Amino acid sequence: MSTQSNKVINIKDRSGITTEPLAGSEKFYIKGSRDDLLVPFRQIHLTDTPNANPELAAIPNEPVVVYDTSGLYTDPKASIDIEKGLPLIRQTWIDERDDTEQLAEFSSAYTREQDAQDFDIPLFDHRRLPRKAKAGKNVSQMHYARQGIITPEMEYIAIRESMGREALAQRGELPENMEHYITAEFVRKEVAEGRAIIPANINHPETEPMIIGRNFLVKINANIGNSATTSSIEEEVEKMVWSTRWGGDTIMDLSTGKHIHQTREWIIRNSPVPVGTVPIYQALEKVNGVAEDLSWEVFRDTLIEQAEQGVDYFTIHAGVRLAHIPLTVNRTTGIVSRGGSIMAAWCLAHHEESFLYTHFEDICEIMKAYDVSFSLGDGLRPGSQADANDEAQLAELKTLGELTTIAWKHDVQVMIEGPGHVPMHKIKENMDLQLEWCHEAPFYTLGPLVTDIAPGYDHITSGIGAAMIGWFGTAMLCYVTPKEHLGLPNKDDVKTGIITYKIAAHAADLGKGHPGAQIRDDAISKARFEFRWEDQFNLGLDPDTAREYHDETLPQPKAKVAHFCSMCGPKFCSMKISHDVKAAFAEKSQEFKEGGSKIYRQV
Amino acid sequence: MSTQSNKVINIKDRSGITTEPLAGSEKFYIKGSRDDLLVPFRQIHLTDTPNANPELAAIPNEPVVVYDTSGLYTDPKASIDIEKGLPLIRQTWIDERDDTEQLAEFSSAYTREQDAQDFDIPLFDHRRLPRKAKAGKNVSQMHYARQGIITPEMEYIAIRESMGREALAQRGELPENMEHYITAEFVRKEVAEGRAIIPANINHPETEPMIIGRNFLVKINANIGNSATTSSIEEEVEKMVWSTRWGGDTIMDLSTGKHIHQTREWIIRNSPVPVGTVPIYQALEKVNGVAEDLSWEVFRDTLIEQAEQGVDYFTIHAGVRLAHIPLTVNRTTGIVSRGGSIMAAWCLAHHEESFLYTHFEDICEIMKAYDVSFSLGDGLRPGSQADANDEAQLAELKTLGELTTIAWKHDVQVMIEGPGHVPMHKIKENMDLQLEWCHEAPFYTLGPLVTDIAPGYDHITSGIGAAMIGWFGTAMLCYVTPKEHLGLPNKDDVKTGIITYKIAAHAADLGKGHPGAQIRDDAISKARFEFRWEDQFNLGLDPDTAREYHDETLPQPKAKVAHFCSMCGPKFCSMKISHDVKAAFAEKSQEFKEGGSKIYRQV
Repeated sequence: MSTQSNKVINIKDRSGITTEPLAGSEKFYIKGSRDDLLVPFRQIHLTDTPNANPELAAIPNEPVVVYDTSGLYTDPKASIDIEKGLPLIRQTWIDERDDTEQLAEFSSAYTREQDAQDFDIPLFDHRRLPRKAKAGKNVSQMHYARQGIITPEMEYIAIRESMGREALAQRGELPENMEHYITAEFVRKEVAEGRAIIPANINHPETEPMIIGRNFLVKINANIGNSATTSSIEEEVEKMVWSTRWGGDTIMDLSTGKHIHQTREWIIRNSPVPVGTVPIYQALEKVNGVAEDLSWEVFRDTLIEQAEQGVDYFTIHAGVRLAHIPLTVNRTTGIVSRGGSIMAAWCLAHHEESFLYTHFEDICEIMKAYDVSFSLGDGLRPGSQADANDEAQLAELKTLGELTTIAWKHDVQVMIEGPGHVPMHKIKENMDLQLEWCHEAPFYTLGPLVTDIAPGYDHITSGIGAAMIGWFGTAMLCYVTPKEHLGLPNKDDVKTGIITYKIAAHAADLGKGHPGAQIRDDAISKARFEFRWEDQFNLGLDPDTAREYHDETLPQPKAKVAHFCSMCGPKFCSMKISHDVKAAFAEKSQEFKEGGSKIYRQV
Repeated sequence: MSTQSNKVINIKDRSGITTEPLAGSEKFYIKGSRDDLLVPFRQIHLTDTPNANPELAAIPNEPVVVYDTSGLYTDPKASIDIEKGLPLIRQTWIDERDDTEQLAEFSSAYTREQDAQDFDIPLFDHRRLPRKAKAGKNVSQMHYARQGIITPEMEYIAIRESMGREALAQRGELPENMEHYITAEFVRKEVAEGRAIIPANINHPETEPMIIGRNFLVKINANIGNSATTSSIEEEVEKMVWSTRWGGDTIMDLSTGKHIHQTREWIIRNSPVPVGTVPIYQALEKVNGVAEDLSWEVFRDTLIEQAEQGVDYFTIHAGVRLAHIPLTVNRTTGIVSRGGSIMAAWCLAHHEESFLYTHFEDICEIMKAYDVSFSLGDGLRPGSQADANDEAQLAELKTLGELTTIAWKHDVQVMIEGPGHVPMHKIKENMDLQLEWCHEAPFYTLGPLVTDIAPGYDHITSGIGAAMIGWFGTAMLCYVTPKEHLGLPNKDDVKTGIITYKIAAHAADLGKGHPGAQIRDDAISKARFEFRWEDQFNLGLDPDTAREYHDETLPQPKAKVAHFCSMCGPKFCSMKISHDVKAAFAEKSQEFKEGGSKIYRQV
């Protein structure tokens, strides 16, 4: 049935996975307080600025350091073997805490059943037995934070979020609050108070720690996953690598087709970023797609199955209560969240309160035994401008606030999912109500799309809303691709979605005045003004596309140092003229002083 | 030198110009108070909503009426002959006012020189002699408005801006201020008070009247034009048709290469939308690209040349004063406006005040004799986040406010150009200062780009800023294409730029609560929820791309009525489940009433 045009890659062959560094970039690591705490960064090397006087030496430009989500895949020194998975960088830290134990077998009945079967798909061979908190222990980063413990994960994040600090210090522009902003203690405090989360399942020791909270850099999530109609395991692993290459901070595996369990194993073992899922999707597969047949038991086993694989956060639509359903029946677009519609169907079929709501504390018990974070799903988010900020949406948001309080009682980390489709003048209300009702738990929004009329361009309709809500305080933005509402995204769509959302997140960082955020803008603007074309490409979010666009009309190598491009041509380049103006001004200033400082020669 | 991949079209052959109607759309006209006042609209025909009970008749959906900028090119009944140009729909109106006269020859020396030469390019054969105001007459729409005269242009605009009024009336949702909002008298008042302009040169009677002002629909402009390195006359005419097809409200011809005069003639004679230019570009060509050699005389002749061809608005960088230049020398990106850098170079070379500033009243005299509107250029707009809202930019903006007052003294229409590169938190300040300092003259901004780090994606970085500043009150948004900073846009880039800016403008209309703006969103959302795929495509800004994306994975005809797409597959479509929920709820509601109205069966 699939007509996907993506190249099908062989998962057993490294050649199918994208591994080269980004153009002009080099990976490097900053060591923390211990030898096994190595925080990755990417530095973009720049060419020299030619001296106006050609007899004088060119002026060097410092490399620009940027946050790096791409894992070892962009490190040429790393040995990549996706059959073995990534190194377990957090394993020692987890072991040292001495509050977990390796189990003798998987706790999930479903996992054991699957393991007993034969499959005609490649299986991940180097699977480990799961770890779980020892009896009575809570292994969440929030729990440690509230005990006053600074974990290596927190220190790692403090270094990671300090991107640009060195450059600011060099420029003598380090803000006074910068030291405070990025200390491990600040990370701990934000996590302890619930304003930020560190999604880091003890069964995903491959993950490079990162934080989601509005006092840190704005993050983005990329959704991948197959559906019943298209896509394969192989494509999904490469989509994960591809997503993180371009800047995805987390990925969600939203698979709903065949072999969900096996696909996820491949993804998690090879993912340097936290992985989220919506467990109800797989639970529904287990009951053959009949929502009515779902039960707490099936769902509970699915949570444990996924927690023991290493999923870092679960979207759980526990806010869709039976009493909310009447609020949705007169909507223009009803319930547009898959999980929300499944739970609404279940509630109505049984005429009972949602088992996600009634068993919420049971869920917390599972979460804290593996440190899985909640992403409390907005099952009643608006699917159209017409439904934005309506009673159904707001009733659910209030419920999510109540559930946050319960989760925090268990020291379980929580973020809150948000819309959706919202016109510009209603976006801020979403953010403000979320902060108030959900006690400042991080907000994680999908878009929002600021109009419904552009299918094929919903990365843009939503990128506008995402930038705004990020600026207002949303901690993580879930990307939308050009295929939204139309079909499953392919690799190109994933990249377009990621880059669009990196734009939104970075614009939000600038808008919020995040220290250091503007360093890259300043560097690219300087490169642009100095006609350092290669630097301009490499400092961009997508060097390949920038270069390709430039070369479409001016492919000659000498054009890469030319003082113009095909947009204006040589005579009409404002930047070229502006340099002449600057030089002339320096000359005139001298004359001006000599001539008695009259501004006008004739008036 | 050109390696442009665009198909080169034969301008003598209609087949090279895109003329078919948009998918699912039909052009129609609403007649005003006179037979020759026919206002174009596009109606998107919709399929019926299938009845839940298949034995009952399907429910028809009313067509959705949208604003139409595409001229006769999308009217299959029209006879298109680009060698003859468009019909002169405003000629009678202009003649009836009896305040203009046809000249015996072109007033511009340059025009007469060109006419005496032979060219190896196709020339527009059906050129008319120019019209000019009779001695002592002022023929600007602002002048008429201030006399209390409602011109046919104003009535035309009132009807055109009422898009959606019928639909709102049908739904009983016509707002109380709606009548006021769209009357011809309201149009007149807005023009008289300077809050809106109607760019409508008496020598461009082909133009379909439109208005630019913040109390009307937000408009967008597309820049076209060749540069010295690439593109041809033929491509530029098709780019104009192509731009208006997708929604460009005005176009600017920014040509800087060869045959500027002849290219412009082809464009204007065939353009249904107002055409803007930056006359200093052509003036500079006339002095062989040496800014120092520019003079008031060359510039004046260029203004007259272009006014007599029918250019509707002129970008004039009269706000770049000699005293402002020192404010730019320490900027990260200097002067990034072509016109601004040219004038700065001239001022410095001569050490004199700009002749655009000193001759501003002479320029007004020319403008009012043809009804050319000012687009006061922001020659000192920031070219980077680092330079946003700096002293140079704001000093120029203040000057533009002074010039506005002078232009209005002459009853000459004015809009004000704005930036540029501005981070989100500084956008509103731009809008607020512009309104205050420029006395509410319409603002016309380029983006702004909310970050500098995404070359190749600057339609998106700027679309974010454009949506926001449009919402804050900008009247027209100048598009940016993916090629910005990298090269001259091709046809695909032009379309991407236009669609991105239609999104921004429409999002702004929604944000501002423009009556009727949400009708199309509601219709597409209903179509989406009812799985009317064809309607969803056709109601979108770009039906072709939406259909192509959908068909990439599900090309079968039956997929166009399927209750799912490849994104989620059949079992996981939230909208499908939501319909089941709605049906189940109706059933349960009945049980609920019969069962004594207890919400929960068991708690």
